[in-house]
Amino acid sequence: MALKFIGQALAQQIDAELMNPAVGGFSIDQLMELAGLSVAQAIYKQYDRKTFPRVLVVAGPGNNGGDGLVAARHLVHFGYRPTIHYPKPTNKDLYKNLQTQLHNLKVPFTDNLPDALAKTDLILDAIFGFSFSGEIRPPFDSVIKTLKQSKIPIASIDIPSGWDVEKGNASDLGLNAETLISLTAPKEGAKNFKGHHWLGGRFVPPETAEKLGLNLPEFPDTDQCVKIA
Amino acid sequence: MALKFIGQALAQQIDAELMNPAVGGFSIDQLMELAGLSVAQAIYKQYDRKTFPRVLVVAGPGNNGGDGLVAARHLVHFGYRPTIHYPKPTNKDLYKNLQTQLHNLKVPFTDNLPDALAKTDLILDAIFGFSFSGEIRPPFDSVIKTLKQSKIPIASIDIPSGWDVEKGNASDLGLNAETLISLTAPKEGAKNFKGHHWLGGRFVPPETAEKLGLNLPEFPDTDQCVKIA
Repeated sequence: MALKFIGQALAQQIDAELMNPAVGGFSIDQLMELAGLSVAQAIYKQYDRKTFPRVLVVAGPGNNGGDGLVAARHLVHFGYRPTIHYPKPTNKDLYKNLQTQLHNLKVPFTDNLPDALAKTDLILDAIFGFSFSGEIRPPFDSVIKTLKQSKIPIASIDIPSGWDVEKGNASDLGLNAETLISLTAPKEGAKNFKGHHWLGGRFVPPETAEKLGLNLPEFPDTDQCVKIA
Repeated sequence: MALKFIGQALAQQIDAELMNPAVGGFSIDQLMELAGLSVAQAIYKQYDRKTFPRVLVVAGPGNNGGDGLVAARHLVHFGYRPTIHYPKPTNKDLYKNLQTQLHNLKVPFTDNLPDALAKTDLILDAIFGFSFSGEIRPPFDSVIKTLKQSKIPIASIDIPSGWDVEKGNASDLGLNAETLISLTAPKEGAKNFKGHHWLGGRFVPPETAEKLGLNLPEFPDTDQCVKIA
């Protein structure tokens, strides 16, 4: 049975059910921690830390950005030197705390994207995730344009930013990600993704996966991610 | 430089600083998730899931019990079949949610400890952790007595239950753990521990570790735990 590529509505439903105290019972802190850890682990497996030590994490205003901030913290522990570009920091406790955790690890935050790109081996695109739709608003339109012009390899969380979550790379605004780390289940828009494809987020109850026909692959050993293409 | 074994006051201070929004910025959900994951990973590395599929998690009323509940959830994803004995469930949202997460994985909870022990390959002792002191109160006095009488191997989280956090196995009430998974840094009471000793909790900022002279070992790859003896 093939892995299921899910639409936006189903992705939102799974997320909402996981975090409903009467259903999944997870907190966002827990899920984001596991998601971000799985992203950092996929990076470690795909991009040798000696060849790609400097990772620029470009974080958006929502949960995808939060996943990126968590991933950055684990990347420090895994021996990388991340830098963060976070042009629209979210004014919620969780997001402020994620920044505090990074400050304590001496992870630099920068507003100067071109300057940061000149000192980067790998971009972690944590701008938009499965809930993105509509127009790309400033400043992320120009952020994505700048990232598109660089030749640095891009790893994207959940869906390459600028892609339609269901239709895929349907405009000329989408990032050309070399690696995609899908979370929970890959999205329909990633069906024709041609690069290295990982699945992270090892927390879906098997019964939920079965009910929804997700046909999730087996994760090896204690890994929080698995390569699916 | 040798790994530092820390006293109870320092363990409490590190914990409080990690969770102080103005200092470490971690939530208890995050730290417990990472701690419990590291425990499950150490179990996986020490106890083959084919030989030790049935893990009885005996959870106490505090954070050590919470770590055990998180570990149980990850153990399911790693291919084990945990059962939970949780005689004094904590009436806080986080703990209720951890139970919900386990119910969704069909993990059984049992009040009948002798019956559970008859169907168990490994005990995960998550009764008391670094903040324990004083008398062992009911029902945990008799729980520990029952566990002591069984011949099933015991893996303990942070300190074997019944041990003094600083003086070690100083009474005849302590569990004879075969494996100890210390979190953050080993406690003074574990100095003379003779079994398999793991360190979990890969989240201490290097600057904190250096300031406190913890001399933490390197964790391999993306592992959340490391064998220290």
